[in-house]
Amino acid sequence: MITQQGHLQPPKVLTNQVGRYDFSVEPFSEDYTGRLSWSFFGNHLLRCASLHAGSCGFGYKEMLESRHVWVLSRLVIELNSMPQTGESYSIETWVGRIYKQFTDRLFEIKSPAGNSYGYASSVWALIDIDSRQPMDLSAFSENKRMVVVEERQIPIKGSSRIRVKSTTPIHVRQANYSDLDINGHVNSIRYIEMILDLFPKKQFDTTIPKRIEMAYSSESYFGEKLEFYLDDNENGSYAVEIRKNNGESVVKAALYFKPS
Amino acid sequence: MITQQGHLQPPKVLTNQVGRYDFSVEPFSEDYTGRLSWSFFGNHLLRCASLHAGSCGFGYKEMLESRHVWVLSRLVIELNSMPQTGESYSIETWVGRIYKQFTDRLFEIKSPAGNSYGYASSVWALIDIDSRQPMDLSAFSENKRMVVVEERQIPIKGSSRIRVKSTTPIHVRQANYSDLDINGHVNSIRYIEMILDLFPKKQFDTTIPKRIEMAYSSESYFGEKLEFYLDDNENGSYAVEIRKNNGESVVKAALYFKPS
Repeated sequence: MITQQGHLQPPKVLTNQVGRYDFSVEPFSEDYTGRLSWSFFGNHLLRCASLHAGSCGFGYKEMLESRHVWVLSRLVIELNSMPQTGESYSIETWVGRIYKQFTDRLFEIKSPAGNSYGYASSVWALIDIDSRQPMDLSAFSENKRMVVVEERQIPIKGSSRIRVKSTTPIHVRQANYSDLDINGHVNSIRYIEMILDLFPKKQFDTTIPKRIEMAYSSESYFGEKLEFYLDDNENGSYAVEIRKNNGESVVKAALYFKPS
Repeated sequence: MITQQGHLQPPKVLTNQVGRYDFSVEPFSEDYTGRLSWSFFGNHLLRCASLHAGSCGFGYKEMLESRHVWVLSRLVIELNSMPQTGESYSIETWVGRIYKQFTDRLFEIKSPAGNSYGYASSVWALIDIDSRQPMDLSAFSENKRMVVVEERQIPIKGSSRIRVKSTTPIHVRQANYSDLDINGHVNSIRYIEMILDLFPKKQFDTTIPKRIEMAYSSESYFGEKLEFYLDDNENGSYAVEIRKNNGESVVKAALYFKPS
């Protein structure tokens, strides 16, 4: 019998505040160009964030015990290139800063030889499930914060202020079963998929996204109608907004493509 | 630094013709009910098929060298239950039979204690990329066949003949970037997602799919319009057909739900 491991193992080494998770681009995780799909990649980022938080004692499960949940507010991904079929890569992640109501989590994506595929930054709030209010993280745990925060910087710009002028949706769709994650709302990475799906084949034949910024403002739920507004800001730069039926903004995104 | 493995390891043990791959239900791989999503599960099945074929010497890469590609023709999945958040499971897979133009690949999904979550069967053809003709597998390799075929049976029914009477589509959508896999056509498992997305929340609040049959007849490509036809055959039984713009049948499916 051939026995292989298909899942993340318990931590092996803990020498500092950085978690490292090793992956390879596996069959059926690529897009049609043979590059790791944004869907798999984005969910790997979230998975690493979740596992690293868990191994530090403030993961999904631990927070749920006190009826709190981590909510993703901002996500910026900037890549020189995307790993391709059969290639390996690792995701390193650490807590960058803790503010009053937010905390930064940073990522570097590396090849086995140590070259950088790129970086990502994320901003999270810890929300009280019952009141829906963000927790004051400065009071979170002085001790824990001292242990957890890592001073390592990443060389990409943080999130910008995204404005979308278009008033006519270029696409309308419903939030369905497969869009939802365990929190009961549309998965944060699924919005990236939905936004990439606004573009024609030509876009992916000749260019690849080099930077994607996501700014999450509201959740959307099963059955809600999502409207997509897009500004073409030229030179491969686009701004997108997703609004719910009542006009409420759900997500804003900025995308930058470069020649592939 | 915390170091973890996020990818399948090279084979550890090879004692017979069955490949076993171990997984756990990881963060962001569940649906909103906390069960492993059909999308992740289905892609795990394909991944195990691909890796096992590769380790037997007739995987995607090896076949591509002679300009052949494995094409999925039928897939039947029948589950008593689906693994949930934090649970582990293994997928065992083996080649059941080799016909003239098709080969069966079977699967059992087990808990760590050895209890069965359920089974799956699949039928594949090996297609010549240039002529699009199926290869005669009886001439494939007498020696290889002897080594590979495993006599182990599974206790679920094979695929049935699916008929859909409806003539009015209940949904229309385009095949987009995120729907495609490395073969450049809509991913086989993505059709399962698309079909599950035809159902309202009520369906998943009170029932779960116990059996899904998929019969693939044509590929669909970036930009093609997909029409969904659905027959409600009562008692949780549904038949679905997806047709392309020209009326050509792409996929037929039969779904059976049971109380959750």
